[in-house]
This record gives sequence, structure tokens and C-alpha cells, in this order.
Amino acid sequence: MAKVVTFGEVMLRLAPPEYLRVVQTELFEATYGGAECNVAVSLANYGIDAAFVTRLPKNNIGDAAINACRRYGVDTSLIVRGGERVGIYYCEKGASVRPSKVTYDRAHSSISTAKVGDIDWDKAFDGAEWFHFTGITPALSDDVAELTLEGCKKAKEKGLMVSCDLNFRKKLWSKEKACAVMSELMKYVDVCIANEEDADDVFGIKAPATDITKGELDREGYKYVAKTLAERFDFKYVAITLRESISASDNNWSAMLYDGSDFMFSKKYALRIVDRVGGGDSFGGGLIYGLISGMSAKDSLEFAVAASALKHTIHGDMNQVSVDEVKTLMGGDASGRVQR
Amino acid sequence: MAKVVTFGEVMLRLAPPEYLRVVQTELFEATYGGAECNVAVSLANYGIDAAFVTRLPKNNIGDAAINACRRYGVDTSLIVRGGERVGIYYCEKGASVRPSKVTYDRAHSSISTAKVGDIDWDKAFDGAEWFHFTGITPALSDDVAELTLEGCKKAKEKGLMVSCDLNFRKKLWSKEKACAVMSELMKYVDVCIANEEDADDVFGIKAPATDITKGELDREGYKYVAKTLAERFDFKYVAITLRESISASDNNWSAMLYDGSDFMFSKKYALRIVDRVGGGDSFGGGLIYGLISGMSAKDSLEFAVAASALKHTIHGDMNQVSVDEVKTLMGGDASGRVQR
Amino acid sequence: MAKVVTFGEVMLRLAPPEYLRVVQTELFEATYGGAECNVAVSLANYGIDAAFVTRLPKNNIGDAAINACRRYGVDTSLIVRGGERVGIYYCEKGASVRPSKVTYDRAHSSISTAKVGDIDWDKAFDGAEWFHFTGITPALSDDVAELTLEGCKKAKEKGLMVSCDLNFRKKLWSKEKACAVMSELMKYVDVCIANEEDADDVFGIKAPATDITKGELDREGYKYVAKTLAERFDFKYVAITLRESISASDNNWSAMLYDGSDFMFSKKYALRIVDRVGGGDSFGGGLIYGLISGMSAKDSLEFAVAASALKHTIHGDMNQVSVDEVKTLMGGDASGRVQR
Amino acid sequence: MAKVVTFGEVMLRLAPPEYLRVVQTELFEATYGGAECNVAVSLANYGIDAAFVTRLPKNNIGDAAINACRRYGVDTSLIVRGGERVGIYYCEKGASVRPSKVTYDRAHSSISTAKVGDIDWDKAFDGAEWFHFTGITPALSDDVAELTLEGCKKAKEKGLMVSCDLNFRKKLWSKEKACAVMSELMKYVDVCIANEEDADDVFGIKAPATDITKGELDREGYKYVAKTLAERFDFKYVAITLRESISASDNNWSAMLYDGSDFMFSKKYALRIVDRVGGGDSFGGGLIYGLISGMSAKDSLEFAVAASALKHTIHGDMNQVSVDEVKTLMGGDASGRVQR
Amino acid sequence: MAKVVTFGEVMLRLAPPEYLRVVQTELFEATYGGAECNVAVSLANYGIDAAFVTRLPKNNIGDAAINACRRYGVDTSLIVRGGERVGIYYCEKGASVRPSKVTYDRAHSSISTAKVGDIDWDKAFDGAEWFHFTGITPALSDDVAELTLEGCKKAKEKGLMVSCDLNFRKKLWSKEKACAVMSELMKYVDVCIANEEDADDVFGIKAPATDITKGELDREGYKYVAKTLAERFDFKYVAITLRESISASDNNWSAMLYDGSDFMFSKKYALRIVDRVGGGDSFGGGLIYGLISGMSAKDSLEFAVAASALKHTIHGDMNQVSVDEVKTLMGGDASGRVQR
Amino acid sequence: MAKVVTFGEVMLRLAPPEYLRVVQTELFEATYGGAECNVAVSLANYGIDAAFVTRLPKNNIGDAAINACRRYGVDTSLIVRGGERVGIYYCEKGASVRPSKVTYDRAHSSISTAKVGDIDWDKAFDGAEWFHFTGITPALSDDVAELTLEGCKKAKEKGLMVSCDLNFRKKLWSKEKACAVMSELMKYVDVCIANEEDADDVFGIKAPATDITKGELDREGYKYVAKTLAERFDFKYVAITLRESISASDNNWSAMLYDGSDFMFSKKYALRIVDRVGGGDSFGGGLIYGLISGMSAKDSLEFAVAASALKHTIHGDMNQVSVDEVKTLMGGDASGRVQR
Repeated sequence: MAKVVTFGEVMLRLAPPEYLRVVQTELFEATYGGAECNVAVSLANYGIDAAFVTRLPKNNIGDAAINACRRYGVDTSLIVRGGERVGIYYCEKGASVRPSKVTYDRAHSSISTAKVGDIDWDKAFDGAEWFHFTGITPALSDDVAELTLEGCKKAKEKGLMVSCDLNFRKKLWSKEKACAVMSELMKYVDVCIANEEDADDVFGIKAPATDITKGELDREGYKYVAKTLAERFDFKYVAITLRESISASDNNWSAMLYDGSDFMFSKKYALRIVDRVGGGDSFGGGLIYGLISGMSAKDSLEFAVAASALKHTIHGDMNQVSVDEVKTLMGGDASGRVQR
Repeated sequence: MAKVVTFGEVMLRLAPPEYLRVVQTELFEATYGGAECNVAVSLANYGIDAAFVTRLPKNNIGDAAINACRRYGVDTSLIVRGGERVGIYYCEKGASVRPSKVTYDRAHSSISTAKVGDIDWDKAFDGAEWFHFTGITPALSDDVAELTLEGCKKAKEKGLMVSCDLNFRKKLWSKEKACAVMSELMKYVDVCIANEEDADDVFGIKAPATDITKGELDREGYKYVAKTLAERFDFKYVAITLRESISASDNNWSAMLYDGSDFMFSKKYALRIVDRVGGGDSFGGGLIYGLISGMSAKDSLEFAVAASALKHTIHGDMNQVSVDEVKTLMGGDASGRVQR
Repeated sequence: MAKVVTFGEVMLRLAPPEYLRVVQTELFEATYGGAECNVAVSLANYGIDAAFVTRLPKNNIGDAAINACRRYGVDTSLIVRGGERVGIYYCEKGASVRPSKVTYDRAHSSISTAKVGDIDWDKAFDGAEWFHFTGITPALSDDVAELTLEGCKKAKEKGLMVSCDLNFRKKLWSKEKACAVMSELMKYVDVCIANEEDADDVFGIKAPATDITKGELDREGYKYVAKTLAERFDFKYVAITLRESISASDNNWSAMLYDGSDFMFSKKYALRIVDRVGGGDSFGGGLIYGLISGMSAKDSLEFAVAASALKHTIHGDMNQVSVDEVKTLMGGDASGRVQR
Repeated sequence: MAKVVTFGEVMLRLAPPEYLRVVQTELFEATYGGAECNVAVSLANYGIDAAFVTRLPKNNIGDAAINACRRYGVDTSLIVRGGERVGIYYCEKGASVRPSKVTYDRAHSSISTAKVGDIDWDKAFDGAEWFHFTGITPALSDDVAELTLEGCKKAKEKGLMVSCDLNFRKKLWSKEKACAVMSELMKYVDVCIANEEDADDVFGIKAPATDITKGELDREGYKYVAKTLAERFDFKYVAITLRESISASDNNWSAMLYDGSDFMFSKKYALRIVDRVGGGDSFGGGLIYGLISGMSAKDSLEFAVAASALKHTIHGDMNQVSVDEVKTLMGGDASGRVQR
Repeated sequence: MAKVVTFGEVMLRLAPPEYLRVVQTELFEATYGGAECNVAVSLANYGIDAAFVTRLPKNNIGDAAINACRRYGVDTSLIVRGGERVGIYYCEKGASVRPSKVTYDRAHSSISTAKVGDIDWDKAFDGAEWFHFTGITPALSDDVAELTLEGCKKAKEKGLMVSCDLNFRKKLWSKEKACAVMSELMKYVDVCIANEEDADDVFGIKAPATDITKGELDREGYKYVAKTLAERFDFKYVAITLRESISASDNNWSAMLYDGSDFMFSKKYALRIVDRVGGGDSFGGGLIYGLISGMSAKDSLEFAVAASALKHTIHGDMNQVSVDEVKTLMGGDASGRVQR
Repeated sequence: MAKVVTFGEVMLRLAPPEYLRVVQTELFEATYGGAECNVAVSLANYGIDAAFVTRLPKNNIGDAAINACRRYGVDTSLIVRGGERVGIYYCEKGASVRPSKVTYDRAHSSISTAKVGDIDWDKAFDGAEWFHFTGITPALSDDVAELTLEGCKKAKEKGLMVSCDLNFRKKLWSKEKACAVMSELMKYVDVCIANEEDADDVFGIKAPATDITKGELDREGYKYVAKTLAERFDFKYVAITLRESISASDNNWSAMLYDGSDFMFSKKYALRIVDRVGGGDSFGGGLIYGLISGMSAKDSLEFAVAASALKHTIHGDMNQVSVDEVKTLMGGDASGRVQR
């Protein structure tokens, strides 16, 4: 069984039930999630030996975050305890013309105050084949950026594949800072994942003439972006997720993959959304699974898109689907007939 | 007031709230349902004197199953107590590209271990006009198949109309076994109800060239199926429900009825699904109501389709709508305007 | 900060969770709402100094109704205590082909038994610029109709703008009675709001040849209605909300505004409905906000329609959106992309 | 199987979850209950054929009230439909030094506006052995008092035993009115049930020198009360429930029974309270069961006290315990050991 | 109507339902509370014009905190918006031998980063008679300590009574720091409230020979403490709450008041605990109410103790009881009999 | 870190919320538990490397049971997949005079149909120090008894300590059968745990003259039982838990331990019960922890009793407390003061 290590933050997600707003609720649904942690859960659900590395405080909220990961089969033995708090995000689920609204309360979290030396990368990568992080992790603080760089170097040293989802977060850092830090990290990355805006936000690589709020996507533009990214950073694969937002309730979802020679476009799914958060992460989890388990590039892409299409129907950040379920959808059955 | 007797299993349905999966939930919504029991509830809601016959254990779960039926007006005085357990099914509600998933835990239930002699059919049919069962009941065990046959014979003896919904369940028996047992039972049946796959699964009668996962249905094919069924078993009526599954959230729903001379096709409803389970049963309940209350065949069909269209918006297996509500929809008002 | 006074009834709304019917539920979600109270909440959320005038009993249910209003920033200091009970309405949320169903239990409420003299209009209107009521208030009883008339007269005396949403409720009074009472009140009204049926129900002014259950609306017809209304009662503005009910889950929503010279038609929104109750009230709140805060008539209309489009995604009667959120939608972004 | 008919009101009970107050809650637990209805449920749970007679509106709230009764096995076929509304009571559960608080909203209910002629007593009493009502029923209105009297007369005519729980409610009528009406009705009553205050409130019969808020009860005083009642109205049995309120969470509970010759005092139970409402009704149900099923007077008393002790641990107005469970407690096992 | 101003922090309280631990829960009950805010709510419930001063971020969590206060009648118009976050505390409710457990996540909250100049004390105290704060407020940061001092000085200047609950929190500051800061603030305080440990923790004033975990309290010792406090800081009143913790479920509760001449001891209440948090704050609210509304010192003490006894039965930090309810308990009725 | 292996069944526990009965509920709280699994969770919470061995079906219910164990840190890698179903038990929580009621639906579970050969004991015991099972496991079926015996033999071979909680379940087997099977297994057991009835039920060893329903326990009798057990089976330790059931809400709890020479009696705790199920298992977990971590016999006993006292305050079968929390209680602080 292959071993994948992911590194980043897991937050407590506080969401009012159903479509309530924060000002209306007397209850928060409490789940845990974070980009890299979500990828680890996806992989564990596919039978991959997935470990998640982070730093969490020595208190009951830190314990609960760990429990949430190991409940779904993730190896949490590498998690370091210390620091002040578990980061939080409040999530109001949108519907129709009202967008979902995320309010972050993540500053001062234990991982954001981690320092180089807190993670024993040698131990973490022992027996591992793949290292995954996203652009959120180095954005947490300069120290964490350094720590990420250290992880990348060690991963390359030990011959691991390295993947990164650009995941630009404007609340965490500026485009300029992101560009500087990420450009350095990209030297160690083999597989780059981005959504339709990230390449522009982080590296100023822009698909010309696309208005994403209208939900029209430009194939040629994305080819250009993928090719530019691949050439600039010498990536083996560039994957771009393509979301057409019709409303907060309805999205079209597909992706493209560029392997240095071919541009592959996946099937497009018309989705009714149950929970959109973690959609990109579930794509990453699916793509890593496909590539690490020996699927072709095209099949890996289709697996990743089908997996993330399913994620949009799953409550919480973490995708909860099996390889069989993904393959059934990927194989063409989107009819939703009851499985008895 | 006409009296209808239905015979079969009522199970405890355990469903995670909203769209949660079983691995995520800490709560199950507990309702009770089963094909024949659901038909009885539909009829009771329409003012028909409906009795449900089954066998339930002498414990508090058995009590709760009975309470669920009589709460909605079903006569439960014929239910026999004994045996080991109430059958269970776990039901994950699907959405969009993710299908609903049913996990059965129904083996060894009290009704599945019932024997000939456990039911006093004479008493059950006293004053009754109609007997209804489905293909699930004889599939429970050889003994229950025998018991069903006994019921059918007694019903015919006493001049009752007999209806059967084919309801093939591949987890309960093979197609071969189903064909053998059901062919014998069909001799006593006047009204046969099937969905678009049952006739093929049970009797090998196939609508040619239809790919049901694509949601395209072939009118001519279904005429062929209905006619073949009617001729083979000498049915008075054959009804076929026609579901076009666009996704787990959206279905088109209609039906046809063949009365030996005419092929009637109902209106088609485009449905947003709240709870799809029991959709077929509510059609059966509506059809029996139409026929027993003296509606024309066409009106009975339209009543049944409108009733089952409404069922798709009702939580739980049991349809909870009134004759007036069905007639309003059947009469053309599907606008969903608030009724004050 | 402008001050707006609204006058009417606030009821306890008892709604089964999700899509349950009253006969199925063991729980009621308890919120409070009423046409004029909902308008006050909308305005308070936009930063307007909004006061709601009503009469509530001296008991804990009356307390809870007051708390619900002041929680959202409404000035409740003018509310009079006395009388017997808080009116109730039971609300079953519809879906797809099943309409929402409202069962009123509002007779004998404290406000419906209020008398002239119970409200100190001088105090209520001190410093106020605008007075709003709807056709529900005078329908509660002859005494309350008198009280409303008194309020209208006093408001005009003091130079307030007066707006009225016709809001015809056939369970409360006949069309004839409504016409007589409302015609008198309209003499004092500057801004008249109506849905596509009210003008006909209350004043017999009919948009010819429109079948609203089919969801087709006739622009010319509504111009005719607006113009007729404006001329008959000398209104400054007539606003008509235009709802196309595709189903209980999907509506198209737009409005027109007539300012005595121009007929303005707003953008039309295709809505997935979370909670449709209070949709009209949120339009009224948006329109008053636009006009009182100095927007142009066209912008006021677009603000009102966008605000009420958002309301359809908000649980409960009361709209819970900010000016910024309305303006974002009004400005064209209906894509529902996550706001981080 | 003996048949018992009870007559009175069933209300919707709206209770905030756990120990929340009405001003804090966003949810009401919705159950149905009423003194006579609760007695009928107790009896049905003991296997008695129990019918409940009342009047309920023709709407979904009326339907739900009926469903609540028949769910627990009560015959609801005698219930008359008509009138305006289902009465409501709001119930805040107390704890420790804070008493439970009931806010009634029961005026204008369908049963309170019933008239002589609305109930077909001949049909109701067909095959019946026992008629039960409480002092709440005639307090609802003069018409209902008349209707109750008619019922009593008819019951006596047909040879039924008649029982009445005095159940004085000061919000419904004055002591003077109660005395006048109840004195007339008592002529037809065989079994009189009262708590430690009722005899004084209704008939001015007072146990001297007892301060009930101190939880000290005076055996001699209650003998005096029972004897006085029995002699004044020629009762066969007088039962008095004896509650010592230590706090809203802890009560001691016992009762006495006077059969015209002996004064029997039951065991006393020290109770932790889950839900105290319906405690007296469950005593009535237990006593009727004991007497109608042929137990000795002393055993009937002990059965009634044990049944009502158990009721204090049951959520909702209606007692949900079996004959076996009552007998186990009555037999001395109050240890609360897990029953596996 | 008297006006009271309180100053401090309001936090989001996240509590697992019932007795669940944080590691078990998927839901948090979300309420808001804080020592000074709780006092303001108590006072508003008693009809006092109570304003709460704090600093909250400009986001939806800040909005929700404000709504929670104004829902219960507190004037929130003085609250300043700015800063980073709403402080949080996680609260596991204990039972029996397991204590309640509070995990703070309050660092970096908007109020803790407030500076002198952020509050307009002149405006805040306009028309006010009383200023209240607790030892938690100056412990938040040096800046907030300064701000508190500024408030105290201004309050004295304007002739307000000033009260302070010592409320020592060892997670926020050391005993030494507390002593230094609080000693300065005490110069402006008229009414000092403490629990049985605070005087020792903050000022090193110790009741000799008392072991509080055994629940035995020493009257003479507390007299000594009160007298020493009063003399050192020239307080008008010193109140000490006396809690005997039998277990997390059962406490005895009483208090003493020293007015410079007499030592008054209140009645003692044996409490079953629903929610113990906010018990001390409700005492403070009751005491201020008593003194400001002209009760005698002894009555004020009894009112405060009865109010806080009731608080232990109320869910959430904020006491939700009326003057009448407190007076009934204070008057001697602790029997918990249902109030109808 | 020591490694402990436990072997047995994990069931789905379906419990109505709060104190509802099964016939009243529409919701089941779904947790997972079983005697040996509960012990493993206790140990994992204390930092012990605990593995649980069982057999679970290859479906989502089986997955959920595994997730429940690994969430709390138990090693589930030894769990075998196969068989038909996850066993279920329905659990009504009792209160006061009403006992908790357990309805089993565990027949035909995957573990009960396991065969010798299904478990690889060599692998399971690799690196382990301790093997624990209870009397429930061999009672599941003859095959499982055989499998248990195989485990015991292998454990002894490999030098593990073996502990067994007698845990007699009369619904699973007769006393005669239990005696025969358990006597054979006891040959391999070092530590025997029993409650006050087990030794009599399984081996006919009786503490004379004790009436456990009265809650009086006889020290001398239990010494006799422990000594007899130890001598008959050559146990190193015999522990007996001593429960005095005052009611379903209140129990006294203590235990004794016999080490072949001394009889040690623990402190006794007076408990208010939140959830009593799993009380004995948490004692076992505590005792194993004490002994394996090098505590003295007396300290191990006190640790076990304090741990299980805390368990009575924890919802669900599994104890959720830390070593520190147990030690605090064991050290004498049962005051329940809030831990901040």
C-alpha cells in the first residue's frame, strides 16, 4: 500500500444547520477540515496509507481534530502537539442567488506558529511515495513557509513525488508575497493543481478574455495557462479544475489535465450542490489516487473529476466516497437510481 | 367504506439526517415502512378502511412498528406477534450524481419466519373487497411464499380483487426463483403493477431497445410489455410506472395503464425529490383508490401518478397526502403556490 | 438615520423541520413573523431606525415575540401589552409539485382585539419619516381597521410618507369588505405595493388574459393595473411583484415600478427556494429603503427585487441580508461563488 | 375486553427542549395531551379498549391530534370534527427551585365551543362499561358542562361506572362556579379522584392544618376529606393523590383510597422527575384499570400509584408503560437495574 | 428607570449538547455570554435600562453577539466595532463526580486589543446611575486595564455607584499582577462582590482554616474577609457568595453581605444544577437590582441569592427570570409546584 | 507503550434521545459499543496501544463501527471483514423508578458466525502484553467459544496476561452452558472481573444472604466469593464491582480486589447517572491500566473505581476520560467544581 503524506492546517468548521445564517443560529454543526487533511481523508477512503502532518494544541479541541482524522482512517501519529489554538472557520451555506460565506478565525493557530524543527520530516517520509501540500500552508506564516520548503526539499531528496494545489487565499497573503514564496516552492513540485483563478492570482498567468462569473470557460485559455505553468516550473502534470457557477445551488464541474504533451478535458457534470467546500481538495485526492495507483493520465483525470463531483453531494469538508462509487460515476451512471 | 387488506413486511428504516452518509452520522431518523404497509397508509389517508397483515416480534420495536401504522389510520388488529426481530433497512439519501443507497438488514425478521397457519385469512378478509401484496413478500422465504399463495387463493374464493406490485428485489431471490414463484401467484391476480424493469427481471418480458439509465423510455416497448403480461396471466389491468432518472435529485415521473383494450399514458411530472423511497407504493395506493372508488381507468391512472408525484416530496416511506391534494395536482395545478 | 414605523401583527410561526408535514412532526421550529414586522426587520438590517407597533399579551409568548424583533434591531418600545394571545400560523414547507401550506390560528390575537386609543400615534410618529402597513392589518377586525385609519390620518398630518402592501387574505375578509375598507385607507397612501393578484382581489382591477398558474405574466396587463391604481388613488408609486411559480421549489421573480410617468421592469431572477414566506415583505422593505435613502426609482426597484430574491434563500419570515449583499446581487453577481 | 370511554379536550403541547424557557427557544417539542385523553392512552397501553371523545377542527392540526391518540391504540372513531382550533398549552419544564410553568392558549378550541347534540352518547357508550371525565371538561364552557351532564346521565342510564377527577383549574372558572356545576355532575359519579387541593378548591372541603408547600401531608386530614366527599355525593370510591413537592426535580408520591369502609394508604415513592405533567391522569388510568380488571381495592390503589410514579419518568403527557412494568414496580423493585 | 452600564467581554460559548464531551460532539450549542454582559441581561429582565459596553469585530459573529444582547433587552448602542475576533469558550457540562470543563480560546479578541480612547465614557455614562465591571476585564490586557481605570474615574466623577465582582481568572493573569491592578481600581469601587476564593487569590485575604472542596464554609472566616476588604478599600458593601459543591450536579448556595456594620447571611438553597455558568453574575445582577431599586440591604441580598439560585436552573450564561419569579422564591416557595 | 488486545463484539447502539421510550421516538442516537471494545477505548484514552479484534460485515454499517473505534484511538487493523450484519441493541435510558431497558437484536451478527481460523492470533498478539475478553464473547456461539479458547491458549503460549470479565448474559446462554464453557476458559485467565451477581450466575458461587435489589452489600460475602473464585481457577486477581442501585438515577459504586492474600475495598462513590451502560467495562479498562502501568494493586483498584465512577457521567458505552481526570477524582476531589 502506497503511503502519502500531506501537510497543512486542520480547522474546526462551525456551520449553522441547513441554510441558516450565523445571526440566526443557536447551533453550529462542528466538523473538522482543511485542504491537505481533506486530501488525506480521500486517500484513506480509497485504501491508501495516508498520513497528515500538522500541529495542534494540547487540549480537547486539538484531541477532537485528531479524532476526526483518524476516524476516517488517516494516520495521525505524526501530528505535533503545542501552541495556542485550533483555527476556526464559520461557514454559512449559500443557496440559489446567495453565495456561501466563510468567516475565518484562523490567526494564531498552533500550526501557524510552528517553527522549522517542529516536524521530523525524515520520520514523516519514512516509506512514503508522495508528499502533498497546498498554497494555504506557506501562507500561514513565514515560519510555516520555511517549514514547507524544508519538507519539499526533504521529499525530493528521498525521491517522493510532490504535488501542490495552488489554493490562493487573499485573506492570508498578497499576490506578490504568494508569487515570491510559491515560486521557490514550485521548484520541488511535480504535480500542480489549480482552479481557474489561481494561476492568475499567484503567478499572474492569465487565461485571456474569460469572465468566470458568467460561467463561460475558455478551453484555449486554459491550455495556455497549463502550458505556461508547466514550462515555467517544469511540472510533470498540471491539472486545472473548471467550475461554472450557475448559482450557489447549481454548478457545472469539469477539469483538464496537461501532461507535458496532451491536453485532456474531462466529462462535465451538472451538479446540485449539498456542500461545495472541499470540492477542490477531493479533486486533488482523486488525482493523486489515480496517478499513484497506476491509472492512465486520462483515467486519473476522470477519476478525480468524478470523485469531486460526488464530493459536492457530501456534507462536510471531507469526501466520503469509495473507489467503487467513483468508478461507477466515472463509468457513466449519473442517473442517481437507488442502490439496493 | 371499502376494505382493503395488504400483506407483507414492515421494516424499521434508519436514515441519517439530510444527506449524511452512514459513516458520518451520530443520529438515525427512525421511521417504519414497507411496500404493502405503505399502500395501506395511502389508502387510510384517502378514507379507505385499510388493514395491514404481517408478523412482528413481541417487543418494543414491534410495538413501535404497529404504532407507526395505526397512527396513520391503518387497522393493525390482524397483525400476528411472534418471531425474533423487526427487519431493518439503512437508507442514505442521495443527491445529484450520488444515488441513494439502501443497506438491508432484514434477514430473520418475524415475518420472514412466518409459517402457513400463522394468518387467519378468513378473519382477515371478512368484509374486504381487495387484497394487495407485492413481489417482496413471497421472496422473504418459501414459507412466506406459501402463505401468500394461501392468501391469494382465499381472496379469490371470497371474491376479492387481488393486486400485486412485482417489486423485484435481487438481494432476496434470483430471477429464476422469482419467475417460478410469481408465475404461480399471478394466477390469482387481477391488477398487476410493475416498474420499467420488473417485467424483465421477473418474467423475462423485455421492452426492446431501452436504456433506462439514460432516462429515455420507449412507449411502444411498454405497450408490448403490458400486453404480454396481460395475456400471459389474464390480468384485468397492467400498470407500469415510468421513471426517468436525471439524477438522484431530479426525476421525471409518469405511468401507463392497460385495461385489456386501451393503452393510457399519464401526464409526466418533472420532480425535485425530497424522498424517493415508497414512490412506487404510493402509485399502487393511488391506483387501488381510483379503481375501488369508481373512477374511470384513465382517472385512476392520473390519480395514481399525481399521488406518487406528491410522494416524492414527502419524507419517509409512507405517502401523507389527501384526496383533495392529489386531485388538485391531477387537475393541473403544479405551480406550488402557497396554500393559505 | 431615517425612522420608519410599521404597524400590524406579529405571529408565532410553527413549522415542521425540513419538508415534514404537520401530521408527521414531533417538533416545530418556532420563529416569529408578520408582514409589517418583517419589513421593520429588513429596514433595521439596512441600518434604518425601524420601529414596529403592535399589541401583544402580557405573557412569555408575548415576550418572546418582542425578543425576536429586538434581536434584529427593531425598536419595540412602542408595542402595547394586553389582550389574550399571540396569533399562530402553522407552516408546512412545500417542494416541487407540493405547495407550501399555511394553517392560520390567528383569531382572537391581542392585536386583533385592539381598539382605537390603544396606540399613541403621536408618540409613535415622533421623529419618523415613513409609515408602513399592509392590507392584513385592517382585515383583522373593524376596530383595527379604525385604528389603522387613525394612524394613516395622523401620519399624513405629520408629513410622513405612507406605504401599503395590499396583501389580500381571503381567510380574513371578503373582497367586498376589503374594497370598502381599503379604498378609504388608500386616500392616505403614497406608495402602493401589490402582487399580481391583489389589485384584482381588492379593487377588481384586473390584468386581462393572464393565467398566473401557468407562470406567464403579461407586461402590458400590469402596466394597465399600475396605471389604474395610481390614477384611482393618486399614488406616487405603484410597485407590482411578479412571481412565476414553476413549482414550490423554483420560481422566477421580478417586479415593476410605476412612478406616474415611467413603467420600470426589473431584472428577473430564477430562484431555488429555501423559504418563500416573507418574500413580498422583503420587497417592501427593500423598496422603502431605496426610496428613503435617496436611490433613484429604478435603483430602488432593483434593490427591492434583489433583496427579495435573497429572501427566498433565507429561513424564516424575516430577511437577513445586508445592504452590501443586496448591492452585490443587484450589481450582477448571481453566481453564488463562495465569499471567503 | 372491557371498554372505557373518556371525554374531554386534547391540546397541542408546545414545550421548549430540555430546560429552556420560552424566551430562549427556537424549537418546540410538539406532543398532544389532555387529562381524559391521557387516561385513555394509559388504558389502551394496558390492553383495555379505550375510546376518547372530543371535538377537533377539520384541519391538519386536528388530524395530528387524532393521530397522536390512535398511535397509542386509542379508538378515535367517536371524535367529532368541527370548530375553529386545537387548544394549545406552552409548557416550560422546571428544575430544582424553578417550577414548571404552563401558559394556556386554549380558549375558543373546538371542544370548548361544542354544543349539546354534537356527541352521540348512545353510540359512544355502546358496549362500554366505564365513563371517565375530569373537572376540566365542564369548565370549558356552559355548553360543554351541559354536554358532560348529558353524558353522565346517559352513562348511568346504560349502567356504566362513572369516574371523575376533580382537576380544578382556576384559569377556567371560579371556585363558586366549579362548586355549582360539579355538585350537579357528582350525582352520577361512582369514583371520585382528587389531589390534595381539589376538594377544598371545588367543594370547600378542607384537610385542616396542612401546609402543602412544605410537603407535609396529614393522613388524618385526608381521611376526613375522603369521608366527607363520599358521604356528600355517595361515591363508591374516593381516591386522593398525595404529592410532596420537595422541588421541581424531586417529589414524593403516594395516594390513599377510601372505599366507604377502609382508608388505604399506598407505598410512597421518592421520585426524580422527568416530566410531571399527566401524573394525576396516569393515576386515574391505573385506578380504572385496577378496578375494571378485577383487582382488589388495595391492589388497584397500589397499581395506580406505581403507574403514576412511572409516569413521572416519561416524557409527554401520556403514560407509556405496560402492565408488567407497573406490576414490577408495585411488587417492590424500584432499584432501576438495567432490564436486559 | 435607572440606567446601569456594564463593561467587559462577551464571548461565544460553544457547548456540546447535554453531557457530551468535546471529543464526542458533532454539534455545539452556540450562545453568548460574559460576566458583565450577563449582569446587563439580568438587569434588563428586571426592567432596568441596562447598557453593555464592549468591542466586537465587524463581522457576522460580532453581529450575532450583539443580537444576543439586544434580544434580551440590553442597550447595545455603545458597543464599538473593530478588532479581529470574538473570543470563544468551549464548555463541557459536568455531572455528578465529573466537573464542568471550560477551555478558553479568548486571546486576541476585539475587546482584549481595545485601547484607551476606544470608549466614549462621557456618552456611555450619560444619564447613568451605576457602573459595573469584573476582575476579568482588566485582566484582558494592560490596555484594557487602563481603559477600565479610565471608566472608573469617569464614573466617580459623574457620581455613579461603581460595583466590581473580583472574578479572579488564573489563566488570564498572575495573582501578583491581579493584586497590583485591582488594588488601584478598587479605589473607585463602592460595592465589591467576591466568591469564597477571590479575596485570597487577588488580595491575599484569606478565610482561615476552610477547605472549600469539602463544602464546609466558615461563617466567621468570611466575616473576617469581608471586614478586611471593606476596611482596606473603603467599600460601602462587600458581598460574598458561598458555594458548597457537593458534586457537579448538586450545590448548596447562599451568600453574605456586609454593609460596614452588619453581617447578613442569606437563606441557603440546595440546588440541582441545570447550568452553573453565570451563577455569580446573576448574583451580581440581583444585588445591583436590589440596591438600585431601593430594597433594604438584607432584601437585596436575599433577592440576589434567590435570583442566582434560579440561574442554576437556566440554560446558558444569562439569567432569564423575572422580578416576580425571584420574589416568589425569595418569599419561601421553593416547592417547584407547576405554575398554571 | 504496552499493547493490549481485546476480543469480542461491537454493536450498533440505538438509543432514543433523553428519556424517551422506543414507542415514542422518531430518532435514534447511534453509537457503537461492546464490552471488549469499550475496554480498548478506555485503554487508548489512557495512552495504551489497544487493539480490538472482531468480525464485521463488508458494508457501510461495518465501516461505521470501525470508524467509531479508530476515532478514539483503537487499532482496528486486526478486524476481519465478512458475515451478514452488525449486531444491534436498543437502549431506553431509565430514570428514577423506571429501569433502563435493553432490547437485543444481536443474533446472526458477523462475529457470532465467525469460525476458528478467522482470526490470526499470532499476528494479533505480536508485541502484545495483555489479552482481554468477557463472558459475552464465548456466549455468542459454539464456534466463537472455540475461537476464544484458541485465543486464550495462544495468549498463554506467548506469555500474555489474560483477563476476563464474567459478564453473564442470560439471553445468550443458560447458566449450565456458561459454567461448562467458562470453566474451561478460566484455566487461562489471570485476572477475573465480576459484578456482584456473575459468580453465582456462572459458577454457582454465591455470596450468602444478600438481596441486591435492596442495595445492601455484604462485605464478608464478597470476600468469600473472591476467595472461592481465586482458589478454584488459580486467578492472580479477582475484582468484584459493587453496585448499590438506589434507583435508575442514583447508584452507589465501589469495588473490591483480592490479590490472593489481601481483600482491598475501594472508596464508594454516590453517583448521579448520565449513562450507566459500559460502567463495568470502564472498570475493567481502569484495572488493566493500573496493573499494566505498574500501579500497586490498591491504586489499580482505586483507579478502576474512579474511572468507572466517571463513566457513569459519560454518554455512550465508551468511557471518555483521561488519566489525569481519573487521578483527580481518585485523589479525592469529587466536588465537581468547574475546571477553567
